[in-house]
Amino acid sequence: MNSSGQIEPVTILDAAKRIAPFINHTPVLTSHTIDKLYQAEVFLKCENFQKVGAFKARGATNAVLSLDKVQLSCGVATHSSGNHAQALSWAASLVNAKAFIVMPSNSSKIKVAAVKDYGGIVTFCEPTLASRETTLAGILDQTGATEIHPYNNTRVIAGQATAALELIEEVPGLDILMAPVGGGGLLSGTSLSVHYFLSGGKVIAAEPEQANDAWSSFTRRVFVPSQNPITIADGLRTSLGSITFPIILAHVHQIVTVSEESIIKAMRFLWERMKIIVEPSSAVPFAAIMEGRIETAGKRIGIIISGGNVDLDDLPWRKND
Amino acid sequence: MNSSGQIEPVTILDAAKRIAPFINHTPVLTSHTIDKLYQAEVFLKCENFQKVGAFKARGATNAVLSLDKVQLSCGVATHSSGNHAQALSWAASLVNAKAFIVMPSNSSKIKVAAVKDYGGIVTFCEPTLASRETTLAGILDQTGATEIHPYNNTRVIAGQATAALELIEEVPGLDILMAPVGGGGLLSGTSLSVHYFLSGGKVIAAEPEQANDAWSSFTRRVFVPSQNPITIADGLRTSLGSITFPIILAHVHQIVTVSEESIIKAMRFLWERMKIIVEPSSAVPFAAIMEGRIETAGKRIGIIISGGNVDLDDLPWRKND
Repeated sequence: MNSSGQIEPVTILDAAKRIAPFINHTPVLTSHTIDKLYQAEVFLKCENFQKVGAFKARGATNAVLSLDKVQLSCGVATHSSGNHAQALSWAASLVNAKAFIVMPSNSSKIKVAAVKDYGGIVTFCEPTLASRETTLAGILDQTGATEIHPYNNTRVIAGQATAALELIEEVPGLDILMAPVGGGGLLSGTSLSVHYFLSGGKVIAAEPEQANDAWSSFTRRVFVPSQNPITIADGLRTSLGSITFPIILAHVHQIVTVSEESIIKAMRFLWERMKIIVEPSSAVPFAAIMEGRIETAGKRIGIIISGGNVDLDDLPWRKND
Repeated sequence: MNSSGQIEPVTILDAAKRIAPFINHTPVLTSHTIDKLYQAEVFLKCENFQKVGAFKARGATNAVLSLDKVQLSCGVATHSSGNHAQALSWAASLVNAKAFIVMPSNSSKIKVAAVKDYGGIVTFCEPTLASRETTLAGILDQTGATEIHPYNNTRVIAGQATAALELIEEVPGLDILMAPVGGGGLLSGTSLSVHYFLSGGKVIAAEPEQANDAWSSFTRRVFVPSQNPITIADGLRTSLGSITFPIILAHVHQIVTVSEESIIKAMRFLWERMKIIVEPSSAVPFAAIMEGRIETAGKRIGIIISGGNVDLDDLPWRKND
């Protein structure tokens, strides 16, 4: 196994073909205002318009469709309180498979309802990692379901890589591709697509300062776990995985961090100027541009806008009233 | 002059060519969720992604670019507190012309700032129609500027018609085109594009129940003015015009009305499901679909999403907390 965790160019191309009938080929949006402000050409790959409102639909679909009939008959399972829970429930429903989702008892009602809406079978557990893992292990034992990890899974990573692949195919000559980093599924996939399909392209990840475990791991080249970080970017609170970290070390060029304030500012800017709903995690790479954390002048920059699932009754700028 | 107010097919095609280098060719979004809910195929023409955040950029640009050098040297003028004020300021700036904008003294600070940001020269007046008209007349006298009415102007109407033209060209075989109706610039333009370029297509307009002057006028075939209506759809509070009304009578098939509650519901649905920011006026046609006011089953339905300019600090669902 090489540093790509057995993900070869053909793995990504196959994933793209496999999931194409089910997922959205999402649009790329541009803005003269943004280009002028940063003397760059910025291309937003809008995965907020993806099925279930996030890129997670790609990886989950690729993983589910890679299983055989016997495996599918026992269903799939995961523990997640975020977009992966919805994505896996939705992907399983495409092939009439069961999706067993372990969710912490303090998960928001909206998220639980969304998972159930997509057909997921929810089991609640205590809001600790230990309880999540024990509960999931119990379900795997009882049902024979296949665990689909949110990011530490080569099929999931290959699926997430297809967002960057589409962007690279649609927008020639990109200099930089940016993505947020949490567990590293999107980032490792993005970096592999750039490595294989965008000669000379650089991958720059962005992470909240207050959840800078990926930055620490990358800088020290040693795995540093995430320790219950407090950030509004709820998709980026997790630690890197044993599969995602080596890929990131091998193929990502830079990780920059941004403040909470600038995440909210970037999110609001994208809402107001681009008229798109993006979730806080999605705004993190653009926050890095707004903060001047990367050289933009004269560059063609692609950004994966990772998702758009927000609670409209709980917007961050309400707290600043 | 025929009922189209001298707007022939070539007038609309010329407008499309004239403004193409300056405006956005906006994307058309679809949603399987919406299609499934209403057993239809629904296509959203996203003018919320248009320059200045609204279709108004089309009409204003066509009107400004139709003027000769002598006219442009004296500038353009209008009274408006809405999207037309921003659109005209922006369009004038494209050709380095002055835009004199009369705004009521109680206009929101955000809107005044936006107009100034696009280079508009703002003159405040009392918040009455009489004061707006007198103040504008004074400016026209002093400056020799050309008045560009927000909707009762054939060049503006021809410009607005290009949104439907693009949609008709991109999505073949539409059965129905929907647009909101306020002063009727967008609706009359849309109805002309359907009349000329979409054989057999029907035009259905939607209007707030609480500002149903267009519905009354259309039903009684007599002009009924708008009387300070109270609706959240702030773009739809105006009366039809002497040019827009006859076009609407001739080429619109139906006008339906919707409640305030359903406008807010439709707006929120589009934000949550489509991940796009739409302003209340833009949600009115979709509200008509949600309310079951039109037959959708088996139909291909295009909707002009007119704009996305909202104050993120003052969202309608906050009031329902």
